[in-house]
Amino acid sequence: MTSSTTTNSTNMTVYDFPVGPYPTRVRIAIAEKKLQMKIRFELVDLYKGEHKKPEFIEQKNYSGTLPVLELADGTLIAECTAITQYLDTLDGSPSLTGSTPLEQGIIHMMSKRAEIELLDAISVYFHHGTPGLGPLVELYQNPEWGFRQRDKAIRGMHYFDKVLQRQPFIAGDKFSMADITVIGGLVFAAIVNLEVPPECKALLSWYERMKKRESVATQPAFSS
Amino acid sequence: MTSSTTTNSTNMTVYDFPVGPYPTRVRIAIAEKKLQMKIRFELVDLYKGEHKKPEFIEQKNYSGTLPVLELADGTLIAECTAITQYLDTLDGSPSLTGSTPLEQGIIHMMSKRAEIELLDAISVYFHHGTPGLGPLVELYQNPEWGFRQRDKAIRGMHYFDKVLQRQPFIAGDKFSMADITVIGGLVFAAIVNLEVPPECKALLSWYERMKKRESVATQPAFSS
Repeated sequence: MTSSTTTNSTNMTVYDFPVGPYPTRVRIAIAEKKLQMKIRFELVDLYKGEHKKPEFIEQKNYSGTLPVLELADGTLIAECTAITQYLDTLDGSPSLTGSTPLEQGIIHMMSKRAEIELLDAISVYFHHGTPGLGPLVELYQNPEWGFRQRDKAIRGMHYFDKVLQRQPFIAGDKFSMADITVIGGLVFAAIVNLEVPPECKALLSWYERMKKRESVATQPAFSS
Repeated sequence: MTSSTTTNSTNMTVYDFPVGPYPTRVRIAIAEKKLQMKIRFELVDLYKGEHKKPEFIEQKNYSGTLPVLELADGTLIAECTAITQYLDTLDGSPSLTGSTPLEQGIIHMMSKRAEIELLDAISVYFHHGTPGLGPLVELYQNPEWGFRQRDKAIRGMHYFDKVLQRQPFIAGDKFSMADITVIGGLVFAAIVNLEVPPECKALLSWYERMKKRESVATQPAFSS
């Protein structure tokens, strides 16, 4: 792990791989909340398997995944949803995870659904149905499972297309954590060359809008 | 789907399979929040594959899983975490999902970790490494993947044992949604005859305490 940027005003660290789909979710949340200046990003090289090393698993995140948020006192928060929930409620005015019980319920449902049906499915495909992070990191692969998950993700794209035919954002009429999760899914789809079917016009047009948001456009995943 | 109990005061419906590990999570949350009288439970028979029928998937939950909460106006909330978040914040005093950003972050992290490392892993083992819901429902099985997930769940038990060696509850010093998720995991472990290793003393002793809570003891999953 090598430290990249640091200033005196930072009080949190994100263990990060800047172009990774999951780190991109938290990076977008940070940008939406305008918290960039308070956070130091520390690179963990996925292609070197640094996230699977015993010291990372013991000291940072048992599940061996990125991103992880570390607070000034050393408290660790892993998992994108948990990190987003924390950062979004810090200022007392949540804008990504919902202000009412109903908003919270719908946003959490749609974000979880975007994980199950799109992002996590593509992640399994990447790690099991393609060379993934390479032979030194991918010590076990189950290609058949990987291909099933790829097909599930394509069905998921059709599902989210239907959702977006009737409303402007994934969880309703406002941008939320659920949009960010679907963005993460489409970032991963591009990495594995999984094209959004051209008939998914509502999903494609939503994605064009999303890529114009400053919080999204400024991410390393979109600068090529 | 056949309706089981209904009274005039009910205004929400839970699509339910009373002994199922995931439905049990929401049932415990409902009991903790003392919302039983406001909720009508409607049986969806998993062993008949009712949750995988096109009408359930189209009308209730795209992911074809239980439980699902339906509000009086027909709004649907699927996914245990989302349902718990909704029910817990309804009364303005969340007791299961955290009151501060830090509590929320830690509880969401630990609950998600309990899904990844324990409950969801055992679910995959059940559906892929055992006969699961039977040949009419389990149309595709990948036993090798199932067995890997079983082994992951055993490692997960050791992890949560370590957590409970240093604190009384899964997310710290208070009962929370994260405890409920681990309870769901151990309910599923019993169904698939996956024993908690006897050396996991802290986990076993925590589970004995949990089974004495009224919200837990009164669940169909524990009456045998």
